[in-house]
Amino acid sequence: MFSRDTYIQRRATLVKNIETKGLLLFLGNIENPVNFEDNTYRFRQDSTFLYYFGIQQPYLAAVIDLDENKTIIFGDEMSIDAIVWMGRQETLKEKCDKAGVVEVRSKDELGNYVKGVLNAKRQIHYLPPYQSSNKIQLSKLVQLPIDQLKPSVAMIEAIVKQREIKEAQEIVEIEKALEVTNQMHLMAMRMAKPGVKEYEVVSAIQHIAGSNNCELAYPSIVTINGGILHNHYKMNTLTSGRLLLNDSGCETPMGYASDLTRTFPVDKTFTPEQRDLYNVVLNSFEGAKSALKEGVRYKDVHLIACELLAQGLIDLGFMKGNAQDAVANHAHTMFFQCGLGHMMGLDVHDMEDLGEQYVGYTVADPKNKTQFGMKSLRLGKELKAGHVITVEPGIYFIPELIEMWGAEKKYEEFINYEKVRQFAHFGGIRIEDDIQITSSGYKVLGPDLIKTVEEIEDYKKQF
Amino acid sequence: MFSRDTYIQRRATLVKNIETKGLLLFLGNIENPVNFEDNTYRFRQDSTFLYYFGIQQPYLAAVIDLDENKTIIFGDEMSIDAIVWMGRQETLKEKCDKAGVVEVRSKDELGNYVKGVLNAKRQIHYLPPYQSSNKIQLSKLVQLPIDQLKPSVAMIEAIVKQREIKEAQEIVEIEKALEVTNQMHLMAMRMAKPGVKEYEVVSAIQHIAGSNNCELAYPSIVTINGGILHNHYKMNTLTSGRLLLNDSGCETPMGYASDLTRTFPVDKTFTPEQRDLYNVVLNSFEGAKSALKEGVRYKDVHLIACELLAQGLIDLGFMKGNAQDAVANHAHTMFFQCGLGHMMGLDVHDMEDLGEQYVGYTVADPKNKTQFGMKSLRLGKELKAGHVITVEPGIYFIPELIEMWGAEKKYEEFINYEKVRQFAHFGGIRIEDDIQITSSGYKVLGPDLIKTVEEIEDYKKQF
Repeated sequence: MFSRDTYIQRRATLVKNIETKGLLLFLGNIENPVNFEDNTYRFRQDSTFLYYFGIQQPYLAAVIDLDENKTIIFGDEMSIDAIVWMGRQETLKEKCDKAGVVEVRSKDELGNYVKGVLNAKRQIHYLPPYQSSNKIQLSKLVQLPIDQLKPSVAMIEAIVKQREIKEAQEIVEIEKALEVTNQMHLMAMRMAKPGVKEYEVVSAIQHIAGSNNCELAYPSIVTINGGILHNHYKMNTLTSGRLLLNDSGCETPMGYASDLTRTFPVDKTFTPEQRDLYNVVLNSFEGAKSALKEGVRYKDVHLIACELLAQGLIDLGFMKGNAQDAVANHAHTMFFQCGLGHMMGLDVHDMEDLGEQYVGYTVADPKNKTQFGMKSLRLGKELKAGHVITVEPGIYFIPELIEMWGAEKKYEEFINYEKVRQFAHFGGIRIEDDIQITSSGYKVLGPDLIKTVEEIEDYKKQF
Repeated sequence: MFSRDTYIQRRATLVKNIETKGLLLFLGNIENPVNFEDNTYRFRQDSTFLYYFGIQQPYLAAVIDLDENKTIIFGDEMSIDAIVWMGRQETLKEKCDKAGVVEVRSKDELGNYVKGVLNAKRQIHYLPPYQSSNKIQLSKLVQLPIDQLKPSVAMIEAIVKQREIKEAQEIVEIEKALEVTNQMHLMAMRMAKPGVKEYEVVSAIQHIAGSNNCELAYPSIVTINGGILHNHYKMNTLTSGRLLLNDSGCETPMGYASDLTRTFPVDKTFTPEQRDLYNVVLNSFEGAKSALKEGVRYKDVHLIACELLAQGLIDLGFMKGNAQDAVANHAHTMFFQCGLGHMMGLDVHDMEDLGEQYVGYTVADPKNKTQFGMKSLRLGKELKAGHVITVEPGIYFIPELIEMWGAEKKYEEFINYEKVRQFAHFGGIRIEDDIQITSSGYKVLGPDLIKTVEEIEDYKKQF
């Protein structure tokens, strides 16, 4: 946990910022069953609960009563039976004290407290539930069917405004995650040799996280088919001549994430074709990165990255015509179907549970939800100092898309289908770093993980 | 997957065995969110769904319509958008064909199908949901509030009757899991040295599972405080003079579990006190094991194990009086607070989601739900050839229990509190193997993982 003052201060800021009255209700997460009640997935506390209360214990809830100026945590101390089975641990009272919360009540009392607020016709604010258990709990508490729950926009907006600007101590945590992630990525580069299975690399990556007392922040994507954007299949054998794409990050015991991607050859060197395409992505990455600073719209940075990708692909003969026109017509989405990046913090896609429209966009400048490509850009709004974001351009050859669009002759004036078809099974390339926005520009967080063709080849040659 | 005939045959047996009419409804599991909708825990299919349909894909459901003699799987093929993001995979139709199911309908149609059955006043049978998502889904489908759902006893009983008798091919799968688990335990013995962290051992164990394309079957218990029965705290540093208890198992890609425990010194050798207590547990283990055969009640095997523990503890001066009397009076529960074992198969506690009263007990001989000790025995009923069970006696020194019962002078005539108090922080010892019941006796499954003091010391001296 951070200091007691941190949590007291964060809650005070929230109360000050929020433009409403009533009750703010925070539900912690539970231990979710895998295949029966007592066999559970690892416990992961809700990130907003962690941010304002810091307590890593299942089955908690908290309220900030704006009208009565009270903060209460609802939860139960361990029974003697539980102590026999689970061991004596720090009491809930002690944990709450570390979070600066003096009022602790039994979990049973939460229902009555909320009922009292309902009866008094006072407002109850809550966040969108994502775990089914909290959908059920919330539905009971506020006496609405699950599909009629109405999360509080005022509460969401106040929380996003606060959580999106990272404190210095949060940056320290993210950089701790990146130290471990750096090792995870170097291990994958060392291990990648013909004959190795993708799942063996995943397991070695997870082992580095685990032996540093971290968890994977998300299921690693480790694939020789990097053209598949969210590829969790991991049964392939690494073969000579392929690239391996590794998108892996971890989270610290306090819950802060990292999210890095590197793409490198299974062999010790890139082929000329791999090198050329890799350098297009790297050039896009560097160009986008250098455009980052407070006040710039991330959507515009995304478009810079797209144009650099398009120009590189034109230079290599995969595309044709003018790069700006190609991007304006969305023709680059044949190769780059997704967005340039997203916020990162206590979640790898920070605050995604609160709603992309509040985290990544504004009312005045909302997301384009229909255009292929733009509809997958999670972050579009103006950057502020203290934002932590990812930058992750890529080139992806997707056989199904090439086949479908080729048959339709889609974007024919910009795409050289003859050449593209020859690369249908090339795979994909992504390069991703985690970056803090500053008033003067940006800071790449964590150790400087090797990234150029030369650096990667030099490293791989050692093993 | 097993052969198509396996699934066809299993369903035919279920239909033959079940003493009811109406609709059998099977809900598969979903991908459950960790901290936001798109960041999910590893997918684990429901075990009963796996048993009858074998398909490892989220968001499926199936029905066996007993009245209309129909089997239908409800689920959706991937959209082109999903193929772009996730890659082309085997179609659902192809997977269903491998399970011998020819009728596949869209998931949307499940609601109407069930509504038709409700409207016709036909019975709908379903199993107790354990994941919250399925509680919500089931509640909508059968139009009952979650807390008024009524799982079908007829369906549960028919499934337990079938799943509890393991097929030869299921034993093969369990032994595959045990091959990997054997390596997991040897690794832990090798790694256990002063200065190592518990979580480092856990991570190495998980890495062996992962690099063999297996998952942990349950969160590993790796602890120097083995007196704590379900100890998932893993931040301690291993120190000289302590024992390390390792309760770890894995599951194969098909979902079959293993569950082994070994306890061994952090140093290369046991202390005399550790050796003496270890041999009491080992003697209890061997005695219980040799009593196993078809027709014996597991509850009686549990009591044999308890008596052997009590006699050993009497011999060492921790207990006094007559062992049989001590067990009849439950005095041994100061040291052995839990049950001797449980069924194992597609779940580490096999079919625990269906209800312990149906899996471990009978109506004629129900569980003792109030007596400390017996109330934690998950399996009491008569053993049959084809059962796969664990045998896991232990001695646990629980400081809180020693303090509490000592103050009450509880079981004073059987417990030598003076000596026991000196061992309050000794920790605990458990030895556990997975065993198949046969008509003539039993078969210990998997490789013969080292177990005696001499075997463990000889092994540890090599590293």
